[in-house]
Amino acid sequence: MDWKDILNNYIDIVTKELEKYMDINYSKNNKLIEAMKYSLMAGGKRLRPVLAMASYEFFSSDLEKVMPYACGLEMIHTYSLIHDDLPAMDNDDYRRGKLTNHKVFDEGVAILAGDGLLNYAFEIMLENTIKQDNMGLYVEAMRIIAKAAGINGMIGGQIVDIENEDKSIDGETLDYIHLNKTAALIAASMKVGAVIGGADKNDIDNIEHIGKNLGLAFQIRDDVLDIIGVKNKLGKNVGSDESQNKSTYPSLYGMEYSIEKIKECTHNAHERMQVYDKKADFIYNLSNYLVNRDF
Amino acid sequence: MDWKDILNNYIDIVTKELEKYMDINYSKNNKLIEAMKYSLMAGGKRLRPVLAMASYEFFSSDLEKVMPYACGLEMIHTYSLIHDDLPAMDNDDYRRGKLTNHKVFDEGVAILAGDGLLNYAFEIMLENTIKQDNMGLYVEAMRIIAKAAGINGMIGGQIVDIENEDKSIDGETLDYIHLNKTAALIAASMKVGAVIGGADKNDIDNIEHIGKNLGLAFQIRDDVLDIIGVKNKLGKNVGSDESQNKSTYPSLYGMEYSIEKIKECTHNAHERMQVYDKKADFIYNLSNYLVNRDF
Repeated sequence: MDWKDILNNYIDIVTKELEKYMDINYSKNNKLIEAMKYSLMAGGKRLRPVLAMASYEFFSSDLEKVMPYACGLEMIHTYSLIHDDLPAMDNDDYRRGKLTNHKVFDEGVAILAGDGLLNYAFEIMLENTIKQDNMGLYVEAMRIIAKAAGINGMIGGQIVDIENEDKSIDGETLDYIHLNKTAALIAASMKVGAVIGGADKNDIDNIEHIGKNLGLAFQIRDDVLDIIGVKNKLGKNVGSDESQNKSTYPSLYGMEYSIEKIKECTHNAHERMQVYDKKADFIYNLSNYLVNRDF
Repeated sequence: MDWKDILNNYIDIVTKELEKYMDINYSKNNKLIEAMKYSLMAGGKRLRPVLAMASYEFFSSDLEKVMPYACGLEMIHTYSLIHDDLPAMDNDDYRRGKLTNHKVFDEGVAILAGDGLLNYAFEIMLENTIKQDNMGLYVEAMRIIAKAAGINGMIGGQIVDIENEDKSIDGETLDYIHLNKTAALIAASMKVGAVIGGADKNDIDNIEHIGKNLGLAFQIRDDVLDIIGVKNKLGKNVGSDESQNKSTYPSLYGMEYSIEKIKECTHNAHERMQVYDKKADFIYNLSNYLVNRDF
């Protein structure tokens, strides 16, 4: 199978699982469910669940074991986008080519839809975990996710990001933002796949390093795309970082160095993949695709 | 020991534990930690952790086993207050006699402080759970909390609440709001104490019923206080429900019926406590105090 077919197959599986999880018996809270579905089912790259699934398959088969955690990762990523887009944060009107959550619903509903997705992620993961014999693996997976999504991970990166919107920042601060806001959850996605797949400590560490490098490359590519990208493909306004006076990799280090850095991170990741030989083909191809993407 | 001494002792224990959890090694995200601490350490009744601790002691000793989950409950409760107070929701300037989170910090920080507390609750609970031999009990406790705090619990109640702000609603809708927005997490607090304490299924069900009745009584008392209360004691503006055209128990059923309903719920709870004899003395006294409170 071509790696793009594998990708589409993964996306298909996770999207169907998410649909199942969002097929909720609601009573009076239908507006909330509707708002959660609006953002969760808006497409997107499904990068985090795909990475969790792919890294799981380095070590094990029967994908369904990792699915609740892959879906949890996507719910957490989606909640972070809904809250990031709010007027009090990045104040974005478009996301993935569609109006942002608070533009379709209202701010109060969007805040609760984000809260709902974060909480629901843990709810579905815990509902699954309680039924397992080998609970330790799954608790460890949730622990990794909570840490990466939290105050010393994604939320930590986001606060430093919004605090520095109108300031020029140093490289250390930009690294903090990138590593925490984006790379932490991407690395966690791969790590969770390895943990549930039954990998040993060495492999888990190795996979985490791969994830961190890919996450950083991915975020710097995002910065680059904000300058050179095309609105239609990106689904949001080009130059939105610049118009918010956000420091980015290119604004701090220049375009040439940024592109070098993307290559370097990708190379680091690829080196650590070699030990998995053909099993890593998919992630190898995916990473090349991601760092050269124009969307 | 007088029941009020027991209460103060419980509050003391949980406050110290929360302080420990908030003693975080931060780097660049100190504004986030500061905002989380501001609301979490603002006092408050600590009702949910106290109920978890008290119901745990029906069945077991060595309180420290329940503490991470008692603290998680308080973090989740606090995040819900921060988000409820936002301009896009209830738009309140004061809470517990202090400026609300977004008035001291700003809206973006307050949203992230709420997100941070919700996520951190699961993080600390999971960090503790992974170290336990008998993981099942703790996973079940987290599952109960996630469910009660979620889209078919607290968040569900909140969306129906804000959707109906300027509408007159029927009793069924008001019950949905009260049962989900407030009673669900209060019932979960008691249930979690019982589960971690090692109670059997009958006792867990019984304790949940007690919690649900106390939670409902507590919320109706809140509605009543919003009309008859005194600002200084309540720490927020009296009549804020009315000024937002919120339907409340007294506005829907009248004051007399509301007070009857509080008595009825409290009585139901007390009946189910009898089987625990002297062990239930504290919660019996606490519940009488709460439903007669003017704060």
